[in-house]
Amino acid sequence: MHFRPYDELLARAYQVTLLGGAANVLDWDQQTYMPLKAALTRADQLALVRGLIHRRATAAPIGELLKACEDHGFEPGSDEAANVREWRRDYDRRVRLPQKLVEEFERTSTLARVAWAEAREKSEYVIFQPYLEKILQLTREKAEHWGYEDSVYDALMEEYEPGIRTSEIKKLFAQLRPSVIELFKQAKASDFTRKSLAGHYPIAGQKALNQAVAEALGYDLQAGRIDATLHPFSLNLGTADCRITTRYDETDFTVSLYALLHEIGHGLYEQGLVAENYGTPVGETASLGIHESQSRLWENKVGRTLAFWENWFPIAMNYLPEVARLSPELITRAVNHVAPSFIRLEADEVTYDLHIILRFDLELQLFESQLDAADVPAAWNEEFEKLFGVPVPHDRFGCLQDIHWSLGSFGYFPTYTLGNLNSAQIFARARQECPELDHQLGKGSYRPLLHWLRQKIHVQGRRYLSQDLMKFATGESTQIHYQMEHLRQKVLNPLLEPDTTAAIKANEKESYVRSTPEPARAG
Amino acid sequence: MHFRPYDELLARAYQVTLLGGAANVLDWDQQTYMPLKAALTRADQLALVRGLIHRRATAAPIGELLKACEDHGFEPGSDEAANVREWRRDYDRRVRLPQKLVEEFERTSTLARVAWAEAREKSEYVIFQPYLEKILQLTREKAEHWGYEDSVYDALMEEYEPGIRTSEIKKLFAQLRPSVIELFKQAKASDFTRKSLAGHYPIAGQKALNQAVAEALGYDLQAGRIDATLHPFSLNLGTADCRITTRYDETDFTVSLYALLHEIGHGLYEQGLVAENYGTPVGETASLGIHESQSRLWENKVGRTLAFWENWFPIAMNYLPEVARLSPELITRAVNHVAPSFIRLEADEVTYDLHIILRFDLELQLFESQLDAADVPAAWNEEFEKLFGVPVPHDRFGCLQDIHWSLGSFGYFPTYTLGNLNSAQIFARARQECPELDHQLGKGSYRPLLHWLRQKIHVQGRRYLSQDLMKFATGESTQIHYQMEHLRQKVLNPLLEPDTTAAIKANEKESYVRSTPEPARAG
Repeated sequence: MHFRPYDELLARAYQVTLLGGAANVLDWDQQTYMPLKAALTRADQLALVRGLIHRRATAAPIGELLKACEDHGFEPGSDEAANVREWRRDYDRRVRLPQKLVEEFERTSTLARVAWAEAREKSEYVIFQPYLEKILQLTREKAEHWGYEDSVYDALMEEYEPGIRTSEIKKLFAQLRPSVIELFKQAKASDFTRKSLAGHYPIAGQKALNQAVAEALGYDLQAGRIDATLHPFSLNLGTADCRITTRYDETDFTVSLYALLHEIGHGLYEQGLVAENYGTPVGETASLGIHESQSRLWENKVGRTLAFWENWFPIAMNYLPEVARLSPELITRAVNHVAPSFIRLEADEVTYDLHIILRFDLELQLFESQLDAADVPAAWNEEFEKLFGVPVPHDRFGCLQDIHWSLGSFGYFPTYTLGNLNSAQIFARARQECPELDHQLGKGSYRPLLHWLRQKIHVQGRRYLSQDLMKFATGESTQIHYQMEHLRQKVLNPLLEPDTTAAIKANEKESYVRSTPEPARAG
Repeated sequence: MHFRPYDELLARAYQVTLLGGAANVLDWDQQTYMPLKAALTRADQLALVRGLIHRRATAAPIGELLKACEDHGFEPGSDEAANVREWRRDYDRRVRLPQKLVEEFERTSTLARVAWAEAREKSEYVIFQPYLEKILQLTREKAEHWGYEDSVYDALMEEYEPGIRTSEIKKLFAQLRPSVIELFKQAKASDFTRKSLAGHYPIAGQKALNQAVAEALGYDLQAGRIDATLHPFSLNLGTADCRITTRYDETDFTVSLYALLHEIGHGLYEQGLVAENYGTPVGETASLGIHESQSRLWENKVGRTLAFWENWFPIAMNYLPEVARLSPELITRAVNHVAPSFIRLEADEVTYDLHIILRFDLELQLFESQLDAADVPAAWNEEFEKLFGVPVPHDRFGCLQDIHWSLGSFGYFPTYTLGNLNSAQIFARARQECPELDHQLGKGSYRPLLHWLRQKIHVQGRRYLSQDLMKFATGESTQIHYQMEHLRQKVLNPLLEPDTTAAIKANEKESYVRSTPEPARAG
C-alpha cells in the first residue's frame, strides 16, 4: 500500500535530515574539541552544508510530490497525514527564501558570531553593532519573504514555535509581568544564597556525580555523551546521538549539576523520539517551547526540591567530601534563592521570565517599531533597571550577554517562557495522573515520570503543533497559573513540595494561548 | 590576470575540499567520541556526503573548464600548471566511476567494516568472507572503469601513490625481501626486549610527556589535537585542523610515545602545507608513500635513537617516576629490539617490511591470479610461516588484523614500505645538507630538521609526483640502500647513530623506482 510520491518524499526528507545531522556534528565539534585556528574553514564548511540542505529541501520536485500527497489524502490522525502537513509547512517557508539570501545569512551570522564574541569579551557594543544591523536587515528580508498577517514578528516566531502569534505572547506577558514582579518583591528577604554552598569541589568528583545522576534519570550514555563547554547545550547529531554539555565551577558543584539537569531534560526528549520515524516530522521534536518544558521540568520541578536532595545528598558526599558540611535543606534553599541578576543564564526560577520579557519587548521594538541597533544598549539598560531595580554596569552584563542575536535568532526568546509555563503545567498533570509520582520521586525513582513524558510528549514527535500537544498531554493549552502557583509556593517555603492541585483547582481558567487548528490543507 | 575557467575550477575545488573536510570531521568523530548506538546513522551520513563529493567532483562543466585551462596553457612550473595537471588526473579517474558504483562501494564498505570488526573480535574469518568477496568484486569493477596498461593492480595503486607501477614494486620487493630476511636472522640474538620496560606508568603522566614531546617537535596544538583511540591515526579535517591520536598502555609508556611520534610526523606534514593553497592540489600532500616517510622519519630516525633518550629521559622521569629505574641506553635497546611478531602494527623496524611484502603478494594473487577470498587465510598462514618461521595461531593474529581490506583499500600497503625507504633516504639527505643536524638533534633542537622538511617536502604539496618530489628533495628517486644501511647499523649496534654517509657512498646506484615524467597534457 505504498504511495510513490510519499515514498519519494520520505527518501528526500531522510537525506535532508542526514545532512542536518552532519551539520550538527560540525557544530558540536566546533563547540567542544575543534582546535582554535580551525574556525575559519569550519565556518565555510558549515555554510556550505547548510546551503546544500536548503537547496535539497526546496528542490523542484518536492512541491509536486507534496501536492500529489495532499490530493491523495491520508487518513486523518495517521503518521502520513501529520508528515505531509508538516512537510508542507516547512517547504512553504523554506521555498520562499532565495538560495542567495540563505547563503548570505549563513556567512553573515558566522562573522557576526565572531564579532559578538569579541564585543562581549571587551564589553564594547560598537564592535557588534554593524553586524547586528546587517543581521537585522537580512532577518527583515527573510520575514518579508516568509510573509505574515498581523506582525512581522509572527513570521520570526513561526521558526521556533509554529502556530504561535505575537498577539498571544503579548497578552501572556502582560499578565505575567506584574505577577512575577510582585512575587520577586516578596522573595527578596531570603538569606540562603548560592554563596552558602561555596567550597572546593574537584571536577573529577563533579563529573562522577553528574554521570550517576544522568544514568538515574534515564539518559542513555550509549546514545549520547556529556562534555564540558563554557556555554552548556544539547544537540541532536543523528538518531541515537543526542549529546549534552555542562560547565564546571570548582567552588560550586550545583552549577554543573543544574546545567546538566537542564540539558538532560532536552536529551531525554530527543532520546524518546521514535527511532523508526527518524527523518520525518513525527520523528522530530514539536517546538522549542515544548523542548524547553522538558529541560525545565527536570531542572526545576524535579531537581530543585528537598526530595531530590534527600536522595542525592549522601551520594554527592561520596563523590565530593566537602558536601558533608552542607545539608539537603541548605542546598535546597540555596538553589531556590531569588535575587536580581544581570545574566539570564544565572537567573533563579522567579526572575528568569523578567529577562525574557525584556528581550521580547526589545525585539518587538526592533521589528515592529523603529528602534535602531545603535539604541539597543540604552533601551536595554533603561528597561533592566525598571524591572530589576539595579543599573547595568556594562554591556557585557547587558545586551551583549546572549548569542542569539548574532545568530539571527529573533523570536526565539519567548519559547523560554513558554517552556517554563509548560513545564509547570505538564508536571502538575503528571502528578494528577500518577498518584504515586511524589512517592516515587521521593525514593529517587525517576523512570515512572520519564515513562509518562515519553507517552504524552516524546513519542508524539511533531504529530501535534505545540498547543495541540499541550492539550493532548494536559487537557488545555498553555496556562500561566500552574507556574505562578509553583513559584508562589516556592517563595513561601522552598522546602515544601508545591501543591499543584491548588493551581488545578484555581479558577483562572482563561486560556492564554489559543490552540491552533490543523491547517485546512492537511489530509 | 585572472583566467575565468581556472577561477571557476578553483571555486569548485574549494567546495569539494570543504566537503571532504566535513566528511573527515564525521569520520574523526566516529573514531573518537561518537556514542556506540549512533553508528548506523553515521554510516548513512558519511555515505551521503561522500556521494555528494563524487557528484560535485565530476559535475558536467568540469571537463570543459579543464580543457579550456589546458588550451590556455599556464607557465610550466607555476602553481596553476601543477593544479591543472593534478585536477585533470583526479577528474579523469573520478569521472570514469559511475555514481551508482561509488555509492554502492560506500555502503558495502560500511557494512564490511562492521563485519570485519566482528570477525576479528571473534577470530572467525567466515563472518568477513562474504563481505570481502563483495568488496573485491566492486574493487575489480572500479579498476576496470579506471583502466590500466599492464596490471589491474596498477589501477589500484594509482589511488594512493600516483604514477607508481606494479612492476616497479615487484622489482623493489624482490630485492628487499632477501636482504631483510638476512638481517632478521642476524638480529635474533638480542636480549633487550620491550618487556625490559614493563612497569606502571599512569596515563596522566604519559599524556603530559607526550604533549611536551609534541610541542618540542613543533606540532601546533592550536591547529590540531591529541586524543586516545584503540588504533592511532592522523586526519586532516580542514586547514589548520590536523588531529592525531595515540593509544595508551599503562605497563609500557613507549607504546603511546612511538605511536604519537609516528602520527606527529603525519601531522607536521599536514601542518606544513601552505594554507593559502588549501583547496588545490599544491595545497595537498603528495602521496601516501611521502606521507609515511614523514611519520617514519620522526618515529624511527629521530625517535629510536640514544640521542633522543638522552634528551627525554630526565623529562620522562619527571612525569613518570618509574622511568628512573631504566636508562637511556636500556630504552634505546628495547625500542630497537628485533623479533618476529604476528601484528604488523607491533612490528620492529627490520621485520615491518616483511609484513608488507606478505600483503602485497596476497593482493597480487587476489587481483592478478585466481586466489579466492575463501583461500586467503590458508595463503596468509603459509606465507607468514615461510617469512617469520612461526605458525599463525588464529586469523585474528593473521589475515583479520588489518582494517584496509574491509575499506576496499587494495594497493595501499606498498606505500608503507615506500615510506620506510623514503624516510631513510630523506633523513640521509637532510644530514648531508645540514652538517649541524646531528648536533642539533643531540641537543633536542628539532626545528632545523623540521624547517628543512618544510622547504623540501611540505610546502611543495602535490606540485611533484612522489618520485619527482624525491628527486627534488634528495636528488634521486626511491632507493633501498639508505634504509638497508640504516637497519644494518641499527642491528649491529642500536646505540650508535647510523652513519648514513656509508649508504650515500655505497655503490648501489641503481634506481628501483623510476621517475615519472609529467603527463604531456600539463601546461
